[in-house]
Amino acid sequence: MRDVPTASPPVVVDAMGGDHGPAEIVRGAVQARREHGVPVVLAGRAGVVRAELARLGAVGEIDVAHADDVVPMTERGAGAIRMARSSLAVGLGLVRDGAGAAFVSAGSTGAVAACAVDRLGTAPDILRPALAVALPTTAGGATVLIDAGATVDPTPEMLAQFALLGASYARLVLGVADPRVGLLSIGAEPGKGNRLTRRAEALLRDLPLRFHGPVEGGDVLTGVADVIVTDGFTGNVVLKNVEGTVRATLALLATEVGSSGVGDGAGTRDAAGAEALRRVAGRYDPETHGGAALLGLTGTVVVAHGSSRARTIARACVVAHDLARGEVVARLGDRPAVRPAR
Amino acid sequence: MRDVPTASPPVVVDAMGGDHGPAEIVRGAVQARREHGVPVVLAGRAGVVRAELARLGAVGEIDVAHADDVVPMTERGAGAIRMARSSLAVGLGLVRDGAGAAFVSAGSTGAVAACAVDRLGTAPDILRPALAVALPTTAGGATVLIDAGATVDPTPEMLAQFALLGASYARLVLGVADPRVGLLSIGAEPGKGNRLTRRAEALLRDLPLRFHGPVEGGDVLTGVADVIVTDGFTGNVVLKNVEGTVRATLALLATEVGSSGVGDGAGTRDAAGAEALRRVAGRYDPETHGGAALLGLTGTVVVAHGSSRARTIARACVVAHDLARGEVVARLGDRPAVRPAR
Repeated sequence: MRDVPTASPPVVVDAMGGDHGPAEIVRGAVQARREHGVPVVLAGRAGVVRAELARLGAVGEIDVAHADDVVPMTERGAGAIRMARSSLAVGLGLVRDGAGAAFVSAGSTGAVAACAVDRLGTAPDILRPALAVALPTTAGGATVLIDAGATVDPTPEMLAQFALLGASYARLVLGVADPRVGLLSIGAEPGKGNRLTRRAEALLRDLPLRFHGPVEGGDVLTGVADVIVTDGFTGNVVLKNVEGTVRATLALLATEVGSSGVGDGAGTRDAAGAEALRRVAGRYDPETHGGAALLGLTGTVVVAHGSSRARTIARACVVAHDLARGEVVARLGDRPAVRPAR
Repeated sequence: MRDVPTASPPVVVDAMGGDHGPAEIVRGAVQARREHGVPVVLAGRAGVVRAELARLGAVGEIDVAHADDVVPMTERGAGAIRMARSSLAVGLGLVRDGAGAAFVSAGSTGAVAACAVDRLGTAPDILRPALAVALPTTAGGATVLIDAGATVDPTPEMLAQFALLGASYARLVLGVADPRVGLLSIGAEPGKGNRLTRRAEALLRDLPLRFHGPVEGGDVLTGVADVIVTDGFTGNVVLKNVEGTVRATLALLATEVGSSGVGDGAGTRDAAGAEALRRVAGRYDPETHGGAALLGLTGTVVVAHGSSRARTIARACVVAHDLARGEVVARLGDRPAVRPAR
């Protein structure tokens, strides 16, 4: 067992969310502590969680915060807020009260985000939270789409903060030293865009970040920018449009391949083709695009995908721990840690 | 030759736009007149256009409006407006002066739309124009996305008009008797969406059309609605995101198939697979998604794709002629031609 730093508050893990919880979630939390040195607390039904800890010989090693209820995976928002004794409510309560630095859940993204915004206020200097999602690109890396749905009617100033939050996310989580930030718009010519993006563009040019300029809807998956900033309405539409268009393309392709006779009787090769289709589909599935981070609240919230196994949960704890060290927020203060690249 | 009705003003065709103009464009215009009975006028360099007409034995059958200049296909907007003697300017001038009922061009969508908005005012009762694009769906039909980029900051009242324009387009062009109209948003639950969509949703419920309710970014290609209404900013981002995501999916798939060995040495089958990939890509290519109609101006404008051959140009003339008969606008008056379906 590695030495676990005790100075920083622990990451609170929702033991009950996800398709494979609590067994895989508890295993992931134990991995996060033992292998990565991340302090963790588990929120959920104490009896169930302790039984899982016992199976791993980890009773006494990780604290448990008891919660009576479990928010169902089908719950997308407001309903979750009303469940005051759920593992979401108890876990986020710990973060709100300073007993936790960040929250990790494999529950429904909508439910987790709604509860998090409801129970945690915004961080100092931050006007509104933003949801960051890392989408794989054809260039081989990932692009952070922010905001993917937390703040639907932001001001230009909020978009500028989303840009800084997204750049910090790209540095801390994707390891990009000096991320290029694009503003989602409808053309690069002067005067293109809507009222919001035209005003935001002027602000972005003055920020301590590497502003790439406007990007378009066709640039989301090309890797032309490491971070793409947009309002939460457009971002959510784009995220779901990416997922839907990948599904539609693969469906149309299956039809075309079928009608041209490519699928006739070649077992091994067809199985490999079908497996390739599944892998591409899986990369952009709403439950498997790597999770989403709700940034800008008092305490970071990371939503791992519902089908997460232990290793993914452990990774989410590391991401949450890194994000919670105050670095994302610090760069929004008066003394930016990164100088303008221009 | 069929009897050509002379009562309605002709459709003005930009003879110079497109990758295969003027030969294919002139051939399409002649087809529109001879095979579909659509009255047409050709705008472009008179000598070139008359030579093409002579080749088809159609001199004297179709009028030519001379224009000195040609807007290049690379021009996306404002630059085209300043070319006062282009075939775009001359053709749109005829429509503006009442000598033409509609305008068809295979030029750059951005350039055509910018010139059209600049030179034609809005139709009676219409607040702002909207660009309608028909996207093929996995259900086998098409969904009209409106507005795909003409009006980036609409009011809720404008969105309501776009819904009526889009429904008329679906009836006239797609032949859907009672189109289902969806409002692009980020969830169907009450209170979801942004300020614009929440106010527009209330208006849409009172309109004489079959309102399906809110739809999401993942519904654009499923055929869940015949018309999807959105503001021109979101619509343009979505249109380009569909095109980009189709390209990215096929690129990722090619990589996956290659790495799993599916592509190794089976000529016929691989050629068929590559052909299937090309067909799917072609359906969502910006230049081949069936063209876009700029609705709500005095005179309809149809932008055919740049690679259009004669048959597609003829079809665009028929669409423009149908749309220009006043039916799209008529339904926005005090006595709607279609009663609520609910």
